[in-house]
Parts: sequence; structure tokens; C-alpha cells
Amino acid sequence: MRPIIVVNYKAYYPHSFGKHALEIARAAKRVIEEFDVDLILAPPFTELYRVLMEVSDTRVKVYAQHADPLEPGAITGYIPLEGLKELGVHGLIINHSEHRLKLADINYLVKKAHVLGLEVLACADVPETGGAIALLNPDMVAVEPPELIGTGISVSKAKPEVITSSVSLINRVNPSVKVLTGAGISSGEDVYIAIKLGTIGVLVASAIVKAKDPYIVMREMASQAIKAVEETIGTKN
Amino acid sequence: MRPIIVVNYKAYYPHSFGKHALEIARAAKRVIEEFDVDLILAPPFTELYRVLMEVSDTRVKVYAQHADPLEPGAITGYIPLEGLKELGVHGLIINHSEHRLKLADINYLVKKAHVLGLEVLACADVPETGGAIALLNPDMVAVEPPELIGTGISVSKAKPEVITSSVSLINRVNPSVKVLTGAGISSGEDVYIAIKLGTIGVLVASAIVKAKDPYIVMREMASQAIKAVEETIGTKN
Amino acid sequence: MRPIIVVNYKAYYPHSFGKHALEIARAAKRVIEEFDVDLILAPPFTELYRVLMEVSDTRVKVYAQHADPLEPGAITGYIPLEGLKELGVHGLIINHSEHRLKLADINYLVKKAHVLGLEVLACADVPETGGAIALLNPDMVAVEPPELIGTGISVSKAKPEVITSSVSLINRVNPSVKVLTGAGISSGEDVYIAIKLGTIGVLVASAIVKAKDPYIVMREMASQAIKAVEETIGTKN
Amino acid sequence: MRPIIVVNYKAYYPHSFGKHALEIARAAKRVIEEFDVDLILAPPFTELYRVLMEVSDTRVKVYAQHADPLEPGAITGYIPLEGLKELGVHGLIINHSEHRLKLADINYLVKKAHVLGLEVLACADVPETGGAIALLNPDMVAVEPPELIGTGISVSKAKPEVITSSVSLINRVNPSVKVLTGAGISSGEDVYIAIKLGTIGVLVASAIVKAKDPYIVMREMASQAIKAVEETIGTKN
Repeated sequence: MRPIIVVNYKAYYPHSFGKHALEIARAAKRVIEEFDVDLILAPPFTELYRVLMEVSDTRVKVYAQHADPLEPGAITGYIPLEGLKELGVHGLIINHSEHRLKLADINYLVKKAHVLGLEVLACADVPETGGAIALLNPDMVAVEPPELIGTGISVSKAKPEVITSSVSLINRVNPSVKVLTGAGISSGEDVYIAIKLGTIGVLVASAIVKAKDPYIVMREMASQAIKAVEETIGTKN
Repeated sequence: MRPIIVVNYKAYYPHSFGKHALEIARAAKRVIEEFDVDLILAPPFTELYRVLMEVSDTRVKVYAQHADPLEPGAITGYIPLEGLKELGVHGLIINHSEHRLKLADINYLVKKAHVLGLEVLACADVPETGGAIALLNPDMVAVEPPELIGTGISVSKAKPEVITSSVSLINRVNPSVKVLTGAGISSGEDVYIAIKLGTIGVLVASAIVKAKDPYIVMREMASQAIKAVEETIGTKN
Repeated sequence: MRPIIVVNYKAYYPHSFGKHALEIARAAKRVIEEFDVDLILAPPFTELYRVLMEVSDTRVKVYAQHADPLEPGAITGYIPLEGLKELGVHGLIINHSEHRLKLADINYLVKKAHVLGLEVLACADVPETGGAIALLNPDMVAVEPPELIGTGISVSKAKPEVITSSVSLINRVNPSVKVLTGAGISSGEDVYIAIKLGTIGVLVASAIVKAKDPYIVMREMASQAIKAVEETIGTKN
Repeated sequence: MRPIIVVNYKAYYPHSFGKHALEIARAAKRVIEEFDVDLILAPPFTELYRVLMEVSDTRVKVYAQHADPLEPGAITGYIPLEGLKELGVHGLIINHSEHRLKLADINYLVKKAHVLGLEVLACADVPETGGAIALLNPDMVAVEPPELIGTGISVSKAKPEVITSSVSLINRVNPSVKVLTGAGISSGEDVYIAIKLGTIGVLVASAIVKAKDPYIVMREMASQAIKAVEETIGTKN
């Protein structure tokens, strides 16, 4: 059971773009060599190529932040899944609270992503919608109460019952879906609690992306994630 | 008066992506060395970086196909203008018939693009909306009747009055705006007529992007554009 | 187990408006006196008041075709649930294939409708999304393959497995939700099959709304619905 | 030159609905008998019928708050212009800052409304977009800086230059369009200033809709409007 840390770059300026985007990628390369975690980076569309180049030949994965539920063709300013696949990304985040999708489109994207060999991390706002999305069979679901996103107040501490309810409901409707914790995750301790509460990892944004040194924050989160996983396994034995 | 050819890659698969996207860029580099035209390429967001690298140190310009009317920050899956500027694009297409914008957002994007030093090509569906957009002061306006887009039936031939009305109205409300012809442009002859009818160039998509050899089509269009411009200047003298 | 017939007026012109809207309401009043069915009418927002007046003091229910996921206040051109409740409607259709909603908004609307004492019929395009919506606890779910809507080819005949899969999945995740059959329902026979396949009723539009005599079609559908229910009960005993 | 007062009910609860909606209509009937002004009421879709009945046989006009840019037919939860015409409304507000439209849709709605004999009041956020809309030939344009809407700080006082620039630009591009002042209008004095600055009337919402006695506020606004018009005519003679 390898813990997962997903870094949503969002579109902070200048942090999410250009050399800053690459600095985060380099930090991820260092951390993944030191810790047995899975690291997923989700930079803006325009930065995907360079980040992919930066982490090629490593275990770091790169996801798009969104995908448009459209077939390729005469569409202007949209990115169909085929374009993302061609570029070489490993998966995509969909239905983030800052980019909600219609239910039918979530289903379309999950199905099509899987046909193309892309992974899907779907976000939800509350346990019930997390359960609803889990029925559509994405690889991962992150339940993020929108009122905590970007606050620095982690859901792990402020609303642990959101995490435990999500885990319980999603396990009931589709146990093959991995559950992540999101919203306000800002420290290694938040990651530790998130995993102790039953999820397999976290979805983080500003705490890493806007950090003075993204490597230090990412390393601390990876370290605490490993600790939580080891304790959990110890408990089970 | 240098004629303008804008190539909207749209999101054809595989034509608009990967090596195909670069092939079009290389064709543009050859054409711009041979003809005194302005060439603007608008690939998908995910291909912008590589196309920019391919044409750096040439007069070929690269535009985004769209921009989201949002400030940078905690937004997921959107590209604010700052991110495009950082990447190095020269401008952007907005309000394409396949990605219409709200009027207030068009105004926001034009103003902000100019502050950032980015050029704006705004599309419109009919002469009246072309005039309305011209009042907001983009660099170029392309009037494209949606019913002709992608048909191979050029507006130059099917609806020349759309072009002449657009030119006349836009010149009246804001003479500093350059007018392009779009929709169904598929041959050098279409480009020739478009310029003879009073516009300064064309917005083309599938005729170049899906061509077996984009260079041949682009060269023919550039050649006819030059011919039309020279005749027009000759007439005026 | 009383069968349910829901009439979505949509926005046919002139059929869905004015005196035509009232004619359908009068037909419903006659049918509900003759058959032990539940009849729900969903006229356009602008016709809700008159239809409500027409069927007051009968068992015919009136639903809105949609509701905007917004709180009342400074919003222009939207109808919050409080406004529908004040008017006296009994419930609402949400997420119709012609008016899809974001997943988080479906959840918001179901919860809030129930707080206000309004019923909710939620539509879905395929069994999986029907199951996902059922987890959010609406009163009814109608699974309508969009490709059959408005064709006159009923899902009952063309894709019976869509109905049986929907019934089976929805019963598994939330047995308190009633399942309806929709898309292409045009005759009493379609209704009969829909109920025999395990649903409790149908969502119909043009077959009734655009009928020369809505009463005749509605009566035939009610009659076949009763027949199917009686046979099903007979089988079970 | 008869001044115009447009009352946008928005969707305040309970003020914009039910008996409150009718109370505002009755206030308008009294005011229009006492003052030589034009009064336009724009209640929510669901209240249009009753408000129309209340003011029939008076000079009070009733507008919809919005219209969907769609043809009638198989559309669920939308109101096409034909449905509004059938109901008997006199016109519609479009592109309010709380319900912005795409530019091409504004053009579609103005053209179609005029074919059906409906009037159009189009809103804009700044003078430039007001000018752009004026080119599309609506009957009236109201320029409302969004940052003042609902504040009680009237544009008349806080940003008079927005009004004078709008009047000047709109008169230049299409002098047949009437210009209204909106955003934060809360007193007779605001109305007086708005007309003195060159507009023909105002677009008001909460100041009337949420007033303890809508009649008193409406009467004061009508009275000041008349005063301003008379002084303006006096000045011109």
C-alpha cells in the first residue's frame, strides 16, 4: 500500500508556470527517490509538455487538471482526451470544485480515459457525491469540502467525519476506488491524519505550489505519509 | 500592407497534435521565408510550447486558441492570460464560433491582453457582431458565418456581401481594427477573393491542418494573397 | 403500487403554451378520474401558475421542468426553489438530458427540495449515472438514453436491457428510489412493456404534448399501465 | 420625452414572489395614473402571468428578466421567445450582469424579439460594451457597473462619468437606442441625477422590490424623474 500525493498546480502566478513549474517537478523527482510514495503532478495544460520532459524516466506521473468532454475535431480552445494521450500524460483530474462537470460528462470522461489507458482522479464536494462518482469507476476519488479549499485549515482536522464517511460510503459502493483526502492540506501532519483516517493519500495545491521551497514541504508530506502507512500496517498485523 | 494568414489548428486528431502540429509549424517557416506575408499559428494549449520552440527566431507568430476570462490563482483546468504570456505566445484568438464568450468577457480579455502586450484576434458570426466587437478594440476581427465553417464552401464565394458589409461596418466604428475573412476558406482562390473584397487576410483551419501536405496549401494561399495585395495597391495608384 | 405517468411539456410551440397547455391539464383531470394512476404534469415555468389553477382540487401533480441551483436574492432570470414552492408546485424534474446539471448541483437541489417539501424526479442517460443519482436520494429516477429521446422509438422496445440494468442497479444502491422509463415512449404498449420490465411508470413528452387529442393518448397509456401493474401483482401472488 | 422606470424584481424571497409580486404591480398602477412616466415591471418567469393579469388595461408594461437563445421545441426547462410572446409580455431584459449572454446570442435575441414584436432592454457593464450592444439595435441599453449593483451607492453619484460616457458613445453609434442608468439606484435623487446626466430613465431593483412600501419609493422616483425631464426641456428651450 503505497501512499499517494497529488499536486494540483492550479494557476497561481507565477508559481504554476514556467521555471516555477519545473522547480516543483524537480522537487518531486528528489522526493520519489527518497520515499516509497506515488507522486502525481498536475500542471496547467500549457506546462504539461515541459513537466513531462522533466520527469521522464522517473516514477513521477503527470496528470492534466481537467479534460473537456468532447470528441476531437472542429473544436477550438478545448483539449480532447486524445490530445492528452498523445502528449504522454498518465491521467487526469476531473470535476475539481473549481471546474465542476455535469454528471453525464464525468461518466463519459471516465469511460473514455480508460479506453485510452489514462487514469482518472475525480473530485467530489461531500461524501454522497463521492459515492455517486465512485459508482462510475474512476481510479481515485478525492472528497474536498469546497469551503476548506485554499484555507490552510485541513479537512483532516476540521472535518474528519467527512473523510471517514467518504471512505465508508465509497468502500461500500465500489471498493476498487482509492480514496484521497483533499482541501486545506498544508502540512505533513495533515497528511498523516488523512491516512490514519483511512484514505490512501492526499490532493494538495498551494501548500506545495506556493511554498518557498516545494521540496521541503513535499518531503515532509511524503515522510509523514510513509509513517502513517507503516503504523497502519503494523496495527493490522 | 502585408496580408495575414491565421491557421487555427482546432483539435483534429491526430492532425492538430504531436508531430503533425510541428509539421505545420515547419511548413509555416518555409512559407514565411518565401512570401512577404504574416503567418499566425494557433495550436491547442498543450502544443503551444513545442510550436513556439519550433518557430522561434522566425517571423511566424503563435496564438492560443482561446483564453479563460479569469484572474490567475486558485483555478483548476483554466489558462489565465498571465500563463500564456509567460509561455511566450504573441496573442490569442477569442470568441471563435466553437468557443463563444460573453460580451463582458470579450471586453475583459481584450483590455487585459493589451496590458500584457498580447495581440487579440476576435471572431464574430455576422457583420453586426463584428462591428460590436470592433468597438472593444481587438487587433483583428474575423467574421465567420458559422453555417459555412468546415464546409469547404468559402464565405468569399458563397456570401461575399458578408465580407463587404463587415469591412464597411468595422471601418466605420473602429478603422484601426484589421478585418479577416473566415469560414470555409480552402484554396488560394478563396484567399485571393477575400483580399480583393477588402479584408487583409484569412482565418483557415482544416484546409491546412488536415492537408496531406500543409506546405503546399499554405504556399498557394500565401502566393494568392500577395497577388491580391499587389493588384489592390496597383489599383489604388 | 400505483403506476406513474409524467408528462414533460418541454417547449413545443404552440403545444406547450397557453390554451394548449391547459388542454393537456384538462385531459389529465379526466384520465385521473378514470384510472388509479399518478399523473404529473411539467409545463414551462411561465405556464406553471395556470396549470396549477386548472388542476387544483384534483390528484394531478404539477412539477417544474428544472430548477436553478441558486439561493434566492439578487439573481436575475433564474428561479430558485423557494419561488417554485411559493407558487405551489409539488416537485421538479432535474438533470433532463436537455438541461444537464453538475453533480454537486444535483445533490444541492435534491437536499433543498426535500427540506422545502418538494419531490424530485432526476433524469440520467445510462444505468450507471442513474445509479449514481439514486445515491443522492431523489424520489424518482428516469433513465433516458439521449439517442432515443424524441425519436418515437421507445427504449422499452429498442433497449430493454437499459431498463432492466437501471432497475437492478438502482434497487441495489437505494431501493427507496422509484425508477421510471423514458425516451421515445409513444404508445400504451411502450408503457405496458416499461412496467413489465420492472419500472413503476414513464416519462413522456411529444407523444402526449403534440398529440391531436392528448386525452386519447394519455388514457391509452394509463389503461396499459394499470393492466401491466395488475398482471405483475397477479404474478407475484 | 417620457421618463422610464424599469423594476427588476430579481428573485428576492419572499419579496419577488406571490402576493408581494402583485403588491408591486398594484403600486405601479397607482404611480402610472399619477405621473406621466413609463413603468416596466420584470418579475420572475413564474410570476409573469399573474403580474400581467394585474396590470392589464393599464399603461404598465411587463418584461421577462431573461430569455433563452433557443428555438422552441424539444428543450426542457428553458423559455423561448415564442412562449413569452404567447403569454403577453411586452418585452425582455437581456444580458443582465447576473445573467450574461454570449455576444452572438444577444444579437439573436434582439433580432428575434423584434420579429415577434417584443421590446428589448439590454444591460452592459461599462460604456464600451454598452456601445457594442447598441450596435445590435435593442430598444434600450442600461449600463450598470457590476461593482455597484445592490450596494445602494448609485452610479449617478459614484460614477457619473460612466453615465455620460455611455450616453455619448451610444448616441454616436446608434442614436435610436434609449439609454438608462442602473446600479445602486435607491432614491428619487438618484433618478433625478441620472436623467440630468442625459439618460431617459433608470433600472431599479431592491430599492423598490424590498421596500416596506414599494408605492412610496416608486412615487418618489417618478416625481423626481418628471422634475428632471421638465428642467431639461426648459433648459433646451
